[in-house]
Amino acid sequence: MVANREELLQSFRTYVKKMQDYQSALALLGWDARTHMPKRGVEGRASAIGTLSAELFTQKTSDKMASFLEELSLVADSLDQTTRRMYEECKKQYDRQVLIPADRYEAMTVLVSQSESVWQEARKTSNFTLFQPYLQKIVDMKREFIGYWGYEDHPYNALLADFEPGVTVAMLDDVFAGLRAPTVNLLRRIEAAQQPDDTFLSRHYDPEKQRKFSLFILKEMGYDFDAGCLDETAHPFETSIAPGDIRVTTHFFPNFLNAALFGTIHEGGHALYEQNIAADLIGTNLHSGTSMGIHESQSRFWENVIGRSYEFWQRYYGDLKNMFPSELSDVSLDHFYAAINAVKPSLIRIEADELTYNLHIMLRYEIEKGLIAGDLQVKDLPEIWNAKMKDYLGVMPDSDANGVLQDIHWAGGDFGYFPSYSLGNIYAAQITRALEKDIPNYREHVTSGNLSEIRNWLVRHIYQYGSLLTPGEVLQSVTGESANSEYILDYFEKKFVPLYKL
Amino acid sequence: MVANREELLQSFRTYVKKMQDYQSALALLGWDARTHMPKRGVEGRASAIGTLSAELFTQKTSDKMASFLEELSLVADSLDQTTRRMYEECKKQYDRQVLIPADRYEAMTVLVSQSESVWQEARKTSNFTLFQPYLQKIVDMKREFIGYWGYEDHPYNALLADFEPGVTVAMLDDVFAGLRAPTVNLLRRIEAAQQPDDTFLSRHYDPEKQRKFSLFILKEMGYDFDAGCLDETAHPFETSIAPGDIRVTTHFFPNFLNAALFGTIHEGGHALYEQNIAADLIGTNLHSGTSMGIHESQSRFWENVIGRSYEFWQRYYGDLKNMFPSELSDVSLDHFYAAINAVKPSLIRIEADELTYNLHIMLRYEIEKGLIAGDLQVKDLPEIWNAKMKDYLGVMPDSDANGVLQDIHWAGGDFGYFPSYSLGNIYAAQITRALEKDIPNYREHVTSGNLSEIRNWLVRHIYQYGSLLTPGEVLQSVTGESANSEYILDYFEKKFVPLYKL
Repeated sequence: MVANREELLQSFRTYVKKMQDYQSALALLGWDARTHMPKRGVEGRASAIGTLSAELFTQKTSDKMASFLEELSLVADSLDQTTRRMYEECKKQYDRQVLIPADRYEAMTVLVSQSESVWQEARKTSNFTLFQPYLQKIVDMKREFIGYWGYEDHPYNALLADFEPGVTVAMLDDVFAGLRAPTVNLLRRIEAAQQPDDTFLSRHYDPEKQRKFSLFILKEMGYDFDAGCLDETAHPFETSIAPGDIRVTTHFFPNFLNAALFGTIHEGGHALYEQNIAADLIGTNLHSGTSMGIHESQSRFWENVIGRSYEFWQRYYGDLKNMFPSELSDVSLDHFYAAINAVKPSLIRIEADELTYNLHIMLRYEIEKGLIAGDLQVKDLPEIWNAKMKDYLGVMPDSDANGVLQDIHWAGGDFGYFPSYSLGNIYAAQITRALEKDIPNYREHVTSGNLSEIRNWLVRHIYQYGSLLTPGEVLQSVTGESANSEYILDYFEKKFVPLYKL
Repeated sequence: MVANREELLQSFRTYVKKMQDYQSALALLGWDARTHMPKRGVEGRASAIGTLSAELFTQKTSDKMASFLEELSLVADSLDQTTRRMYEECKKQYDRQVLIPADRYEAMTVLVSQSESVWQEARKTSNFTLFQPYLQKIVDMKREFIGYWGYEDHPYNALLADFEPGVTVAMLDDVFAGLRAPTVNLLRRIEAAQQPDDTFLSRHYDPEKQRKFSLFILKEMGYDFDAGCLDETAHPFETSIAPGDIRVTTHFFPNFLNAALFGTIHEGGHALYEQNIAADLIGTNLHSGTSMGIHESQSRFWENVIGRSYEFWQRYYGDLKNMFPSELSDVSLDHFYAAINAVKPSLIRIEADELTYNLHIMLRYEIEKGLIAGDLQVKDLPEIWNAKMKDYLGVMPDSDANGVLQDIHWAGGDFGYFPSYSLGNIYAAQITRALEKDIPNYREHVTSGNLSEIRNWLVRHIYQYGSLLTPGEVLQSVTGESANSEYILDYFEKKFVPLYKL
């Protein structure tokens, strides 16, 4: 029996490793499509990605996988932690997929592909009516899928499970309720105060110099260039091609400094997480961040908590001025710090500041929840969107393109994804509090450019585990709590009250 | 029955297309490993390539493939040309693989992988004894494989079939016999003549400017940058990732102009072939050059026949001088032309000039043939090598590193590959003669930079067919002959007699 058990485990690990190899090839095909692929390569690339994705899907749902899961379930209690988590993750994906009839899954794939094209056209022409029937079908099919999966308490919980397992509508309602009113209140006070002049951020900044500075900052953060590289793409992203191959991209606007600066730090935060997962998880399905929310907590921690702190620029503003001496000659450190932290309600989520960002997410969360529960109708979305924008942010979209049509997520069928962004912000503040408890002088480390102290703490408490711990376990072990908006509110107060002299 | 037949064909085409998708992913994994992959990505990359290669091998030799081949064989006579050739290519690979016992195939894979490492060490330390037992095992195993496959007339024919199907030892012996003595004779006359001064080629040439000139020349050749790109690697190569994604690489030495210049044109020649295969072969296993030899005929045609011609530099030397005005200020067109065509016997094949190159190949061919027939012993190779070098080229290696250990091919098990290089040169001269018959003033087109006339002729007669025609069929249809060394000898005479004033 021991021999059989060993054979079973060995065979399961080999099978999972093979799935990781497919994942790796798919990640490279995706990265290359956005970085180096010539434009006539599109058709061939879509075909290759389609074939490998289909094969990976088959592996996740095969009879072989079913038999692994069945045999492993019999010995689940006696499995070591790694194998047990490998099993759980495979089982989660398997259960998720096999409950959907194959023809319905296929129909969703086709629908999403059409829908993304239509959405692009609809956004370009600011024509919601064009997109409406597709969005309606996607919502209907999501609701149908939830029917196959089943759910507890609220149908939207079934979707949250994809992105932030363990988080529920009840938890989110609670967290967002605690966050919304104080955020809006703080925003109103800021709007009444004197705004910093941030026009210097839109001067001409040589992209090549921006690239050099991005590389320098990544190096300072401890990004390992022997295990990754920085490229330029239309939209920044991080991708994990293999354990020793974690790449980031950014975008250099010739007339806007912030995008590359904070885009690079943001993706660098994702990459630090992936680059520092324990080596003994290589070849398993656990060698990746444990959830969207925990991942985003790290990109936001590095981008905002560290990268937009006064201490960070005490250390690095001199280097930035050396890179752009004439462009920044008339900008003091205090002026620079105020400008990169300016709070201004805006129409577009991805351009939002730290404070207002979560309001964009709450709006989307409420709409998604309503659509999935059947309380809201797709046809009413533009009106609902605009009313909520006015209510939370005090601004009114000039068009649906800059309103309800701005994000690709719904066209791609990614309902349940948006909350992860705000959870990331909320977690980041909680994790910062835990960091401060362990390293009370962590800000001094930032001021002296000793970022390794902070990074090592994160490696020890979060990064090394990859997906060996669930997101809930990570948060609990680091902070002793589940999601709690108290800390981010405290962080906002401490940052913006002195900054805006409220 | 018609319905069944249609189903069979449809199902076969889908299966083959899937194999092309795997091939595409593997090509990208390989390209990226040599261009952008960070060094810690090596292990993960090897694993991904191993998994996808194994899957592709499985597809080529599966029961499903066997059943396709069996069913198609029943209707082979009534198949359209494309499907028949698709079938033939699949059958060739299938037959090749299934005759080898699985454990022996696996043993060869392991041996080759070890052998390549050992060869690298052996070459570094110029220690043939280190490599000898591995080479012995590879030769033994090649002979064993030939036993499984069977052969006609000469065991080496079984190996030639992998690289240049249709070519036999009898043909090669004949072609090389006609080429060797006149080549050596011409070489002796050149050695007695005045050598051009080519030291200016080793001045400092800014790599960035070399890159710009490489891009310019590729554009002039008609390389489609919407369907490819140029990157830098240690050794230049061309790779076909998908029909619309044909990439080339080159290497820029700061103190040597020739390498990037002619390396780029060479790989550009390969790429023109691949970029101009007919669109209706996309998704089949025929969308690639038809053999190593025909492929090499195109890289050599562009590199040597066009790229080293007086007419080419009549047109482009002004552009090169504009790029490097001070570096080339004292070099006339005639001087430049003489220097890039200098003939000098050398130890290293990949650095050899047009004339002596084939002598390097004949030496290797004779050794391979002897080893496979059992007429030569591995242990005697250094001695045999050096004697033949002295005999053909009049030079004696200073070390085995610069002699018998210089090429990776034998360590990789690639016996039968070398002749393709010379066949490429020989075919190129034959094809040039055919071109001249159709377009008598083709040299004037070169002088005026009208390379599209020449490229279009090649597309029409060679490129568009991909592997729809066999290499023998291509050569026959273009030239009306099989391999014939008469034309390259004529080409050498016409080029080098005036150049060296013989």
